Amino acid sequence: MHDISLVEPTLVRRSVILDDDAVRILDRRTFPFDLRFVTCTTYEDVAVAIEEMVTQSSGPFFAASAGMVLAARLAERSARVEERLAIIDRAATRLTATRPTNNHIRTVVSMMAEAARGLAPDHFASGMQGIMEDAWEKRFARNRRLGQNASELVEDGDTILTHCWAEASLIETLAATLRAGKRVKVVCTETRPYLQGSRLTAHSVAEMGIDVTVITDNMAAHAMDRGLVTRYMTAADRVTLSGHVINKVGTLQIAIAARHFGIPYIAMVPAPDRHAATPDQVPMEERDGRESLMCLGQPTATPLARGWYPAFDVTPPEFVGAIATGEGVFAADALRAHFG
Amino acid sequence: MHDISLVEPTLVRRSVILDDDAVRILDRRTFPFDLRFVTCTTYEDVAVAIEEMVTQSSGPFFAASAGMVLAARLAERSARVEERLAIIDRAATRLTATRPTNNHIRTVVSMMAEAARGLAPDHFASGMQGIMEDAWEKRFARNRRLGQNASELVEDGDTILTHCWAEASLIETLAATLRAGKRVKVVCTETRPYLQGSRLTAHSVAEMGIDVTVITDNMAAHAMDRGLVTRYMTAADRVTLSGHVINKVGTLQIAIAARHFGIPYIAMVPAPDRHAATPDQVPMEERDGRESLMCLGQPTATPLARGWYPAFDVTPPEFVGAIATGEGVFAADALRAHFG
Repeated sequence: MHDISLVEPTLVRRSVILDDDAVRILDRRTFPFDLRFVTCTTYEDVAVAIEEMVTQSSGPFFAASAGMVLAARLAERSARVEERLAIIDRAATRLTATRPTNNHIRTVVSMMAEAARGLAPDHFASGMQGIMEDAWEKRFARNRRLGQNASELVEDGDTILTHCWAEASLIETLAATLRAGKRVKVVCTETRPYLQGSRLTAHSVAEMGIDVTVITDNMAAHAMDRGLVTRYMTAADRVTLSGHVINKVGTLQIAIAARHFGIPYIAMVPAPDRHAATPDQVPMEERDGRESLMCLGQPTATPLARGWYPAFDVTPPEFVGAIATGEGVFAADALRAHFG
Repeated sequence: MHDISLVEPTLVRRSVILDDDAVRILDRRTFPFDLRFVTCTTYEDVAVAIEEMVTQSSGPFFAASAGMVLAARLAERSARVEERLAIIDRAATRLTATRPTNNHIRTVVSMMAEAARGLAPDHFASGMQGIMEDAWEKRFARNRRLGQNASELVEDGDTILTHCWAEASLIETLAATLRAGKRVKVVCTETRPYLQGSRLTAHSVAEMGIDVTVITDNMAAHAMDRGLVTRYMTAADRVTLSGHVINKVGTLQIAIAARHFGIPYIAMVPAPDRHAATPDQVPMEERDGRESLMCLGQPTATPLARGWYPAFDVTPPEFVGAIATGEGVFAADALRAHFG
């Protein structure tokens, strides 16, 4: 039996580190080829790092909340409460504006800004750090519950296809699966243009001792057609109460193929967004199209063409077999009844 | 109205050039970043260039037939007919062995070796060149008929999604479409791992003056979901009499998505393979999996993962709206009646 405590992947263990002088963010743009950290001494540094994709997926949750602690350390130098809270509010606004589609930044940052109102003046920064640590612990615990719940859908001998980097959702699911003595393999798409699959997912899964195969993004349906995949699992940046899954672009076309081949699709999310009834209430981030014309900094396309980079797509509930959350597993059309 | 004679793409116009001293082959491995030609002064040079993938798709047809002319120039120095024909036969065997699954090389090379038997001794090399030019002209004419037939399915205002590099099929279709005064745009997948879409297709389409957008391979369904695509067109490496389309891996998953979104899929092929009733009669090339872990020579994946590179997939006739050939346009399930 695997001992998961021995094989916790680097990306889970060391993605964002709050030190006394700075927040250090593992640079996911070059991992695992280059293990380097971006040092942020201000919340503005953190915001820029998030915008520049130093970290992504759940990384911005950790980075933004640590950025709020940096803001609190700055604010603590001001004697007046209003000045402190103004700094905190500016930081919250700035950090929330970095990436609009994922609501985890907004949620944690606004919670921390609100909590700042109740902090003792002489423990302002340490108080914020305590709030951050609580939020992190809650998130870890919820991820463990999510992983436990999702793992109950995994069968011994499964080959799980995944897209992009599902982070703790996937890692906790695989950990719980291994703890239950079930054997699995993983196939992951490389996930262009940023290669989160071939770099982050493949590396982290391999660090757990699990057999992992990387395919290019055009091979998913063919892998199913060849019988090489038995389950499709991804994270979700957002799940609406209508059961729509908003996740990395490409999630949709694999889900459409999965339904054709009778392969269940399981989306993993800590909880659906109670504030989003349907996908039209979710801002969909459209990034610079030129990002699709590069690979690891090298041009991949003729200079005569334009590029396009819609970061996310929407998978309707008809293609979603189950949604695994921290509170249990739900059919896509049962979310509203439970969470609405 | 566009004048297509002014905008014939480089890859169509200059892929293989027969000069007095050599055959020059456009290097598709680095095009369009680097416009360089590999100079072949002997048929052996041509064979090595084909083996090393300097040219691909229909390129080897042109290169191998030009290599036969180089062999004839060498043979012409021999006074004795048997010596000449021995050189021609050695060249034919060598060139055919380069890519044994590509039946276009075998067909043209064996036709030329046979025709050499009837050539006048004092016009041996020029006679072979004439035979080559005839073969090229026949091929161009068939491509033009195919393009004309396929273009009749294209409507004014269409945005055509294509995958990989459909070469003359696509270029002739677009040329005929423009000649008919219809306006079109093109969206092409980059086509990992070798980027034929973002390099070869996008560049050639742009050279024709057509607006072209490159997407990564995971964006096709989302582009359809956003209403940005009205037609899906690809070449086919092989079409069986059963109406199955064998083409670059990825063709299948886009076809599945296209059917879901009600977008017609048109496969283009000079003719279906009369010798292949069903896909199980077609050998499916499986290339080295490590090719999926690289992009333009740079590693794209963790060294801890394995790769997989099935070069082709099979799209069943239920996903194919029409098959455009040199002899007309057919429903996928009507091929057997016409060609069988």
